[in-house]
Amino acid sequence: MAVARRTSRDLRSESRLIVVRALLAAGESTRNALAEDTGLSPATVSAVVGDLLKYGIIAETGLLNGAVGRPTTGLRANPDRGRVVGVYVEDRYLEATVFDAGLGRLATVAATAAEPVADADGVIDWIAATLGTALERAQADRGDVLGVGVLLPGGMQRPVKARAGAPDAIWLHLDRLRDRLGLPVVVDNPLKAIATAELWLGAGRRSADLVTANLGVGVGAGIVQDGAVVRGATGTAGEWGHSLLAFEGRRCQCGRRGCVEAYVGIPGVQRTLAEAAPGHPLAAGPGDHAFIEALAAAADAGDPAALAALERTADYLGAALADLVAVLNPEVIALTGMTGWLRREHLLALVRRRVLEDAPGDAAAGLAVELSDRSGMDGIAAIALERFMRDIGLVTTRVLPAL
Amino acid sequence: MAVARRTSRDLRSESRLIVVRALLAAGESTRNALAEDTGLSPATVSAVVGDLLKYGIIAETGLLNGAVGRPTTGLRANPDRGRVVGVYVEDRYLEATVFDAGLGRLATVAATAAEPVADADGVIDWIAATLGTALERAQADRGDVLGVGVLLPGGMQRPVKARAGAPDAIWLHLDRLRDRLGLPVVVDNPLKAIATAELWLGAGRRSADLVTANLGVGVGAGIVQDGAVVRGATGTAGEWGHSLLAFEGRRCQCGRRGCVEAYVGIPGVQRTLAEAAPGHPLAAGPGDHAFIEALAAAADAGDPAALAALERTADYLGAALADLVAVLNPEVIALTGMTGWLRREHLLALVRRRVLEDAPGDAAAGLAVELSDRSGMDGIAAIALERFMRDIGLVTTRVLPAL
Repeated sequence: MAVARRTSRDLRSESRLIVVRALLAAGESTRNALAEDTGLSPATVSAVVGDLLKYGIIAETGLLNGAVGRPTTGLRANPDRGRVVGVYVEDRYLEATVFDAGLGRLATVAATAAEPVADADGVIDWIAATLGTALERAQADRGDVLGVGVLLPGGMQRPVKARAGAPDAIWLHLDRLRDRLGLPVVVDNPLKAIATAELWLGAGRRSADLVTANLGVGVGAGIVQDGAVVRGATGTAGEWGHSLLAFEGRRCQCGRRGCVEAYVGIPGVQRTLAEAAPGHPLAAGPGDHAFIEALAAAADAGDPAALAALERTADYLGAALADLVAVLNPEVIALTGMTGWLRREHLLALVRRRVLEDAPGDAAAGLAVELSDRSGMDGIAAIALERFMRDIGLVTTRVLPAL
Repeated sequence: MAVARRTSRDLRSESRLIVVRALLAAGESTRNALAEDTGLSPATVSAVVGDLLKYGIIAETGLLNGAVGRPTTGLRANPDRGRVVGVYVEDRYLEATVFDAGLGRLATVAATAAEPVADADGVIDWIAATLGTALERAQADRGDVLGVGVLLPGGMQRPVKARAGAPDAIWLHLDRLRDRLGLPVVVDNPLKAIATAELWLGAGRRSADLVTANLGVGVGAGIVQDGAVVRGATGTAGEWGHSLLAFEGRRCQCGRRGCVEAYVGIPGVQRTLAEAAPGHPLAAGPGDHAFIEALAAAADAGDPAALAALERTADYLGAALADLVAVLNPEVIALTGMTGWLRREHLLALVRRRVLEDAPGDAAAGLAVELSDRSGMDGIAAIALERFMRDIGLVTTRVLPAL
């Protein structure tokens, strides 16, 4: 896309966003602490806080006693400003989470379908019903909903017939979804949403150059450079799972050979186990979340084949992450998604060692590789909140690929 | 690094830089055409043009007759504003190029040393002497030099003993170099400089998301995202040559196995030839520029082994570029460096085909893969010019990793 220009109005709007992010990440803060955290001048923070108070986005929490000097007024994001809803859509799985406006989770409803739901009307009905249930569960009025964020995988995957399903139906019929819900709807890719969550609420507080590596059945990266989520020319940046680990190596579900995902994605882990121990009881069956948990439990119980498969996977993962370090030189890699198996310290240490060994020069010298619980759902809620701030004129900068 | 904040003053400065870039790329233009090219308002362009005329950075060229309406005043970068010098430093090779302030090349002097020059005093003497010769050749006064840009490879390579040489000596003694030359000196990595050249003078005119893939004995990438050169947390972004092509594949000169550079760098091409045709006359000897030219000539003359090695290399290159597409989703990949062998259309077509096949989804659908003559020398001259504009207060934004 063409180079975006900024105006003075954009700067004020950017500062508002920075202050909201800092408050959401801090929980509670003060004007002085916000100025320190954000690098904005105290005068700018004061003006911006005034704007945000006026629109009810943040609230005062009373007097706080600091370490020195007189008490100052505490500030926090105002959870009662309204509700935002995050929705995650797959062919046979749907999840809706209601957040307060401070991005606290209030209720989650998950639904599964026996058959893939692929036609647009069916998907839209399904979303509307699940969202309704989630709002009930959260005791939230529809009138309080500031916005809905929809996480749509696909739209950027190799289009093969077997994958054309619910997500694709939504990409094609956003207007109908919006009309049906009667609410502002924003859409983004899970990788970008996870990066947004980490930028707003996680490692983004201490670094402007970070990568989220999302692990699961599929594998992908969210990239933050210089404080902004990298989207690429057509919004598909971050498909690290479909970069090469091994030229002419294992066949990937995307059709190509040798992709990172074919080694580090959960079905890839199962294949690593099957290659080394073909008769292993876990080597057959679905390569899903339950498999990786069972494999980790088996390793804990002293199963050498299970342990070897996880160690081999940690090695693959470290090598694949080192490629992100070579190309992007981040300060933090946050591992997200189905990372339960990495909660064994020696496995995470293997990942870190391989990253350090393989990264060029001293590119990984100051790098932190850490686990993170932040999810695409947190990120899409943040994006929906940002969209709301834009709707009421508090934020003017373009941030969204689709709305 | 921490998130950078912008001020209104930065915006004015950014607009000046945008207008200078647009003029350098266009050669000659008008206020109206600049407004159209840059997306800035005509009023902003007028104000910025006024600033730049006042400081002599640009000049009026007289009245131009447009297609319609009355004649308008032409504008161009003012070559007579002064001179900038680009310097490229290797252990045994030094090059100094004098540019006018419109980034036109006036003279180049190259020097080689029989032995590697590694001590700081020796390197500094060598640079001072070569720069002096180049200024003489360009009939340029030292007093006219606005700045010197030094391209330093290394500083971001795996530090092995054999590589500690001239570039490292300079990284460690920048202050002494500056004192000795008595001129403003700016330093950058060749990959970032090539990206800057492409952004200012090349594909950056039509796209804000591009990658330069620099091919030679070494291999690396320059990344531009959203109109800015990606540097990473510690300035080492772009080391694509040391990302994986083949897990546990060929040994790379960096010490790791399977790097892109071990397949796509010129010594890697020679190895591909040697693997398929061990007794081939070109399979022995230095894997340098002369080798790849000879290989291409042999292929032209009908040597099937030479042709096969180049075709295999094109395939490797396409697969490796597809990884950049997966992770970064650029709109343009500009191939720079020693790309003479790729001027055979069928080889470039093989590269493009493999990129399209391997890139995930439709990430490469709108991608242009093209050859570019722009070099790090053009980029470092641009950076030195930008540094000069900063010194005189025309540009305030931080752009440089070292000075």
